[in-house]
Amino acid sequence: MSLHLQRDLDQLRKEILELGSMVETGINNAVRALNDRRPELTQSVFDAEQLIDEKEVLIEEYCLKILALHQPVAVDLRFIVVVLKVNNDLERMGDLAVNVAKRAVFLSGQEAIPCPPEFSDQMAKSILAMVHDSLDALVKLDVEMARRVIAMDDAVDDVNRQMYVVLQALMRDDSTAVERATSLLSTSRCLERIADLATNIAEDVIFMVEGEVIRHNTDSELS
Amino acid sequence: MSLHLQRDLDQLRKEILELGSMVETGINNAVRALNDRRPELTQSVFDAEQLIDEKEVLIEEYCLKILALHQPVAVDLRFIVVVLKVNNDLERMGDLAVNVAKRAVFLSGQEAIPCPPEFSDQMAKSILAMVHDSLDALVKLDVEMARRVIAMDDAVDDVNRQMYVVLQALMRDDSTAVERATSLLSTSRCLERIADLATNIAEDVIFMVEGEVIRHNTDSELS
Repeated sequence: MSLHLQRDLDQLRKEILELGSMVETGINNAVRALNDRRPELTQSVFDAEQLIDEKEVLIEEYCLKILALHQPVAVDLRFIVVVLKVNNDLERMGDLAVNVAKRAVFLSGQEAIPCPPEFSDQMAKSILAMVHDSLDALVKLDVEMARRVIAMDDAVDDVNRQMYVVLQALMRDDSTAVERATSLLSTSRCLERIADLATNIAEDVIFMVEGEVIRHNTDSELS
Repeated sequence: MSLHLQRDLDQLRKEILELGSMVETGINNAVRALNDRRPELTQSVFDAEQLIDEKEVLIEEYCLKILALHQPVAVDLRFIVVVLKVNNDLERMGDLAVNVAKRAVFLSGQEAIPCPPEFSDQMAKSILAMVHDSLDALVKLDVEMARRVIAMDDAVDDVNRQMYVVLQALMRDDSTAVERATSLLSTSRCLERIADLATNIAEDVIFMVEGEVIRHNTDSELS
């Protein structure tokens, strides 16, 4: 591999981690705003949206530049194609964080809904770990770490299912709770989709390294 | 452009249209199963899921092969990168059609919920047109058609918003309707996400042809 290609790929790894870090911060702030009822934390999430979009465009352009300039093959080519997909996934995570933030603003003005601790404590931690570790697995080509990310998705799906049960029961018991329960369900689903996107990244890492196609059944959104 | 590259790009266009057609059929069957309460129509949607996944993998491999063999530049390179993204978007649409189909099976065993005609008649038609036209715009590099796809998204978002209003009111009035109303809301949201993905494709077409970054605010999911 030429030194120039090596240098450009290093830069690409740096860029995608930076984008990942922006997205992680957004998710973290959105979830804290939601759980701690602190709507003021959402402003940074809304402000970051455009920066994330711009960074996504820059990274895609950078990938195109590397492809055109160096015409990489084999593992380098596959890495760039995976980065293009991951880039897209991260931008979507950013959109989902904005969605959670919007609901957090609405919900902070409403009567609080008691949540199972698996949602308010565990789910956000798991999701942030999944996003972070999937990107770590990508830049280190670490298949074991990618497998651990995929394994974490089931627990997130379980919590999302539990939220459906809890919140549907609440809506049946208290008709005045319908709007805020629907809103909270929406945040649970957004978080579950973020976990799905991290799982996609992990699957792409495994495919890149081992050539094995993994299709974890990520889409378990309930009725 | 070499004749070989020309031939491979033609084949790639054919493959992505075939995948699009599989996905359109899935969406159409899922929506008919839902609206006409015909759960037997969903089996083909579930059966097609694996075929769609396999086709997505094949198309990605084909893109990698073209990149490695022909090392295309400029507009051909950009086209392949867009196809990689579209390929991903189509697979996700297939997953969403499966989600709609699952809800259709559940809902067909429940008391029917009266829906606004904008949902049961118009929304599915608009979405199928958006998916079809976005792919047509891609293979014809037709920017005007892409712009029409983007313009259609607002009406779909409006219907989804209307469904939130109607179904939240139903849940407030009738506590026994909570589960089926939540389920129907989920289908509305899945359809809205399919429209968002078609909008993404249309935006990519415009960017590919004109270099103009368009970020239509696609994510209008309500609380």
